[in-house]
Amino acid sequence: MGKKLTAADGSKPLFLQVYDYVITHIERGEWKAHDKLPSIRILAQQFEINRLTVFRAYQLLKQEGKTYVKEKSGYYVGSGNSVAAFQVHKHSQDIAVSSSLKNEMNEIQQLPVLYQFSQALIDPNLLPNLYLSDYVKKVFDIYPKLMGTYSTPQGDEELREVLCRYMIGDLRVQLNVQELLIASGAQQAIDLISRTFVRPMDYVLIERPTYSAAIDIFRQQGARFLPVDINPGGYDLEIVERMMKEYKPRVFYMNPTFHNPTGYTVPPLQRKQLVELAEKYRCLLIEDDAFHDMYFEGPPPQPLFTYDTEGWVVYIRSFSKYVAPGLRICTVIGRRSIIEPLIIAKSLADNGTPLVTQKIFLHYFESERMRKHVGKLRTALQLRRDIMEGELADSGWSWVSPKGGLNLWIKLPNELSAEALLSESIRQSVSFVPGRICDPLGEMNSWIRLSYSFVKEGQLRDGVKRLMDISQQLMKSRC
Amino acid sequence: MGKKLTAADGSKPLFLQVYDYVITHIERGEWKAHDKLPSIRILAQQFEINRLTVFRAYQLLKQEGKTYVKEKSGYYVGSGNSVAAFQVHKHSQDIAVSSSLKNEMNEIQQLPVLYQFSQALIDPNLLPNLYLSDYVKKVFDIYPKLMGTYSTPQGDEELREVLCRYMIGDLRVQLNVQELLIASGAQQAIDLISRTFVRPMDYVLIERPTYSAAIDIFRQQGARFLPVDINPGGYDLEIVERMMKEYKPRVFYMNPTFHNPTGYTVPPLQRKQLVELAEKYRCLLIEDDAFHDMYFEGPPPQPLFTYDTEGWVVYIRSFSKYVAPGLRICTVIGRRSIIEPLIIAKSLADNGTPLVTQKIFLHYFESERMRKHVGKLRTALQLRRDIMEGELADSGWSWVSPKGGLNLWIKLPNELSAEALLSESIRQSVSFVPGRICDPLGEMNSWIRLSYSFVKEGQLRDGVKRLMDISQQLMKSRC
Repeated sequence: MGKKLTAADGSKPLFLQVYDYVITHIERGEWKAHDKLPSIRILAQQFEINRLTVFRAYQLLKQEGKTYVKEKSGYYVGSGNSVAAFQVHKHSQDIAVSSSLKNEMNEIQQLPVLYQFSQALIDPNLLPNLYLSDYVKKVFDIYPKLMGTYSTPQGDEELREVLCRYMIGDLRVQLNVQELLIASGAQQAIDLISRTFVRPMDYVLIERPTYSAAIDIFRQQGARFLPVDINPGGYDLEIVERMMKEYKPRVFYMNPTFHNPTGYTVPPLQRKQLVELAEKYRCLLIEDDAFHDMYFEGPPPQPLFTYDTEGWVVYIRSFSKYVAPGLRICTVIGRRSIIEPLIIAKSLADNGTPLVTQKIFLHYFESERMRKHVGKLRTALQLRRDIMEGELADSGWSWVSPKGGLNLWIKLPNELSAEALLSESIRQSVSFVPGRICDPLGEMNSWIRLSYSFVKEGQLRDGVKRLMDISQQLMKSRC
Repeated sequence: MGKKLTAADGSKPLFLQVYDYVITHIERGEWKAHDKLPSIRILAQQFEINRLTVFRAYQLLKQEGKTYVKEKSGYYVGSGNSVAAFQVHKHSQDIAVSSSLKNEMNEIQQLPVLYQFSQALIDPNLLPNLYLSDYVKKVFDIYPKLMGTYSTPQGDEELREVLCRYMIGDLRVQLNVQELLIASGAQQAIDLISRTFVRPMDYVLIERPTYSAAIDIFRQQGARFLPVDINPGGYDLEIVERMMKEYKPRVFYMNPTFHNPTGYTVPPLQRKQLVELAEKYRCLLIEDDAFHDMYFEGPPPQPLFTYDTEGWVVYIRSFSKYVAPGLRICTVIGRRSIIEPLIIAKSLADNGTPLVTQKIFLHYFESERMRKHVGKLRTALQLRRDIMEGELADSGWSWVSPKGGLNLWIKLPNELSAEALLSESIRQSVSFVPGRICDPLGEMNSWIRLSYSFVKEGQLRDGVKRLMDISQQLMKSRC
């Protein structure tokens, strides 16, 4: 007791510190179900902070179901919501309880380093920048009032028509323009879906590992996670079914094609079976397909969405990552029962993606140049993957060579922790993503994600060499 | 009983229909506090729908505190959350309970009509479109890799610097570049603030009437409203203080300068007092300043933000509405304790506003042409206001002539309902906003908002004439 909280600029808000303080006591089992919490007055005195701050923390705890209130008595520890309580199930890592807001990936990516392996982004030098700039000028000639006009919340109809036609051709599905929504990047799409279909304390099936921003988004919504391991051969569908049956999750967020971070692709048979499971257990599948066209050995299997007949898949197809990332254009596809509430969510969130970026994207997307660009980009990315894999050949590190996407997902030797490697690497101007951030359970400490897409060939070699040296130093110093 | 729900395409989702069904019974007092609700099975049978649909509705009711669950028994009506229960307070309209998601304003604005008085938007013909298009081309020459680059979630630093300098000059406040965030339009700014600082069941002070999208956004967050009337002289600060004291609202959302929809401006003395109240009762003031530069008789009073010393005001300054609406650029200004959590919210919501639109805005904002444009725009808007007011002179309708902004807020004669006028007007290709949509209590049925900014001078005359004719017809048919 008597521990001081810090109010320094930029640190975690005080009320979240109080929140963490309580959660820690609950998780350690020091404060048990139905124990009375310290009164707001007492805790405020103890930490020398305003009572309102403690109140705010207690409100948040209550809202998340971690505590409850007895009138005229005070706050009590909830009965079923600590991690410990959930772990009575056989599969001991079934559930991770969401905690406070963060976006740690972003913090790592913002660090100014020479060798940026934490960005799963295309190197801007691989994009046809000059052509794009010229292109934009044409677009403004076509739409002279573009800057003065709003898009509808659902997205520019002309763009939706073009994407609709493209998807019908590409995926051979029935689709109409009302079944598409334009979002400002896949991340916004996930956020809109999460806000629309997930309520606090709902269960969310999620891959382990997965796209870290998705973890943060569902956590923000107060979801409880049901992690499902993803392997080179896909998921263990028995576990998926058991979880759907037992917990009735609202959604399954998945990234089944050149999966981020692992690069794995879920095979066609599983795709069909997953849609059947979704229908049977009424669990909405969120299929995030960001790297669909970034294949090295031929196109990936058809999206799960194409197997869907009853509206249990919402399909997020992001193009702008490899077309023009700065535009942040993505389409969400689903039956009208899915898309209609998403349009409302979008209209409240930002009243529609800027028309400027939609029109620029539209015209570029339709151009012959775009098709050629995507072909060249595949070759360039494959080359970078090969360079990175070549440099890592003698590392003793292990990974499954990805057949598409932007990342290597690497298992480090047992003696080497990702955290130790990361902190020393950042000191030496190399960054990557520690596996923990991609894990809804916050573990996977001996895994890392290395992106080969953002760093030029020459630098890629030097950067991986430096990373290897750092790892050698660390291993030696351990002996 | 035996009533059927409709599952027709485009109608309200089934589970929301079930939700409404329950709410109606509670609000009418037919189902009282602690009454047991029909079981999920029974209700599913009654409506011939899936149990999961009923479950979803019950979950939502529970989440909103309108019902609670007894284990192994079922769902019960909550004790204190119906409108009726709240109205025991003296000021009988203190609180409006939030209901399901919608964005009705948007629906009206999407209607294809000849005379569009529902859009509080600048007519694109008043923007320097040709100049803007040429400008964009220059921007792409300056930043050839613009399309390939992400912004940081906080927003482009160059843009924040420019806006920071501008605000220091314009408002004479101390400010640094870390205290600004770039959002995709004021609406996203409100949404980010709502998600960050408002929890379900929190009280939110809100003007009556107010910007309708703000009502929808706070409602989505599960807020409970404390409406405060706004008058030509500002608010009744005694009522504001009493509400702050009694309900401890988390935030006060306000639009004190050329207020939307009324056009009223809160006087300087009240601004100072409001900041003092905010500090005293620890209520965050959300100052939405969308029309700051759209004045007709001289600049408005300084924003409340300039009186803030302790960080209880977050200032939303939107420029793009009159600079280039299609760009959707807005800045949120506040102390770091406010901005830091908003950056996280922004990073989760869409990972940053597109760099393309930020850079285009930046260079245009800095240009001499922009300054000239704003001056001309003021004159054009004032002219349109005068035309509309002239056409309405013999109407018998009443309003306070706005000294800035884009709207007239009109009290209809008692014999004329806004709903009747709207439905007939839409039939005759005139649209406007009924007061109800701008009212957190959903009343104000004899008020309407007419925007004079979107329709060209000639059409403005014709449209108002037609509206007058419709009103005459309706009044006659009533006699």
